[in-house]
Amino acid sequence: MPRLRIDLAYDGTAFSGWAAQPGQRTVEGELAAALTTILRVSEPVRLVVAGRTDAGVHARGQVAHADIPDGPYAALPGRSDRSPERAAVDRLNAVLPPDVVVHRVAVAADGFDARFSATARRYAYRVCDDQATLDPLRRHDTVVAADRLDAAAMDAAARTLLGLNDFAAFCKRREGASTIRTLLAYSWERDADQTLVATVEADAFCHSMVRALVGAVVPVGLGRVDVSFPAQVLRAGIRDPRVKVMPAHGLSLEEVRYPPDAELGARAEQARARRVEVAQQPPGA
Amino acid sequence: MPRLRIDLAYDGTAFSGWAAQPGQRTVEGELAAALTTILRVSEPVRLVVAGRTDAGVHARGQVAHADIPDGPYAALPGRSDRSPERAAVDRLNAVLPPDVVVHRVAVAADGFDARFSATARRYAYRVCDDQATLDPLRRHDTVVAADRLDAAAMDAAARTLLGLNDFAAFCKRREGASTIRTLLAYSWERDADQTLVATVEADAFCHSMVRALVGAVVPVGLGRVDVSFPAQVLRAGIRDPRVKVMPAHGLSLEEVRYPPDAELGARAEQARARRVEVAQQPPGA
Repeated sequence: MPRLRIDLAYDGTAFSGWAAQPGQRTVEGELAAALTTILRVSEPVRLVVAGRTDAGVHARGQVAHADIPDGPYAALPGRSDRSPERAAVDRLNAVLPPDVVVHRVAVAADGFDARFSATARRYAYRVCDDQATLDPLRRHDTVVAADRLDAAAMDAAARTLLGLNDFAAFCKRREGASTIRTLLAYSWERDADQTLVATVEADAFCHSMVRALVGAVVPVGLGRVDVSFPAQVLRAGIRDPRVKVMPAHGLSLEEVRYPPDAELGARAEQARARRVEVAQQPPGA
Repeated sequence: MPRLRIDLAYDGTAFSGWAAQPGQRTVEGELAAALTTILRVSEPVRLVVAGRTDAGVHARGQVAHADIPDGPYAALPGRSDRSPERAAVDRLNAVLPPDVVVHRVAVAADGFDARFSATARRYAYRVCDDQATLDPLRRHDTVVAADRLDAAAMDAAARTLLGLNDFAAFCKRREGASTIRTLLAYSWERDADQTLVATVEADAFCHSMVRALVGAVVPVGLGRVDVSFPAQVLRAGIRDPRVKVMPAHGLSLEEVRYPPDAELGARAEQARARRVEVAQQPPGA
């Protein structure tokens, strides 16, 4: 049973998130069905993912893995001279709906686990603070703010949250789950269209954490609270009603980072051990 | 009656093009209705546009003008301290559907005519030649090619069409209409996502001309014809069945250029005179 690493992207608009749910259109559901179809296997293919994105959240750099039977994978190229990897990409994209694109398929290195080997997840969040500057072709992944935002103040406030912290104030509570994370990057800058773009990277995220981190900084940008507000909320350690969880469609999972191949197994064991320690704790956003 | 210059953008996906047509959803129809609404005038506002885009074609830099009664325009800010220009932008965007965005409204300089004062129109055309590299969030303005394309060959072929030429081979025939145009720019390059992007600029375009210019160069990129093929078609002066008019959704009007204010009137008179000379000849794409 080779393990396949699958790199993919999706427009989250019409999906009820990543995770398969009965009766819902999900990315996991579409990708698992596509894999099962092209491999012509009788058992549905099961997927493990790096970032379990919520309904409406997009991805440009999602990573999943699946353990699949050797024979059907080797048979994918048929009579073509393509590699099984390339044949898998082409055939998946031929059967997937247009809002999901598989970028790459490869037999994973020993010890690779899409979820547990990951060392970091990087998200982007897009906010346009003047509707007159919005590119209507980007409206599906850009949130329009009610008023002008001070990007420099937001950037300064964001940086006060960096490091190893208990992010309980920015997480939905889960019984027995740790809310301690390392926030590796959190910055704000304007792109060429004047849209504010946040870069948010952590070893892992609690559920809705990125959108709460954005929601903590937007009131700073609006001038309603001081630059120190997000750090005060962090230290208080409980959810603050002034921190809104921002809309899903501004969020996109841009990249998942993994260590060098030789460290994949050790990293996965370490992450799994920590997970057992703190009970059920899926990485999410 | 001040003349307003209106700079706008739209996602052409759900529009039957710019030009108002009975029973069809058009950008002109939506914008004229929005202007009529915010100005509370009884006569429908009439628009003149720089580039009459076809069904499915997008715009990031479209320009239109409208002659509107002075009083209702001056009254737009109401009790706010906004300028009439800013009030017009805000109120238009509040009533327009989300696939149209007004970037700017301003009282036009003397002699300005959105169509006849324009000195050039610049379009972009996006082609992805490997579906595995497509960003699914860009699928609405990107065409996926059937096979890999040689960007350097396409760029070389495109440049052979530059200059003042009779583009009859790339235009839909119109009785009495000139097909002589000056192609100011035509180049191809790959963007950061490896998508091929054409820049096409001319003083004006005949109907479907940009999409035919792209269609003339794609067979070069596929290696099916020689780099000299587009120039051969140009010289032959008649439509060639090997030149496909490419799909509308890859095309976007990026910018309309105007001369300095002092030359606006002269430019418009010159363009109008040439138009009379060659009969009905709307700029189009």
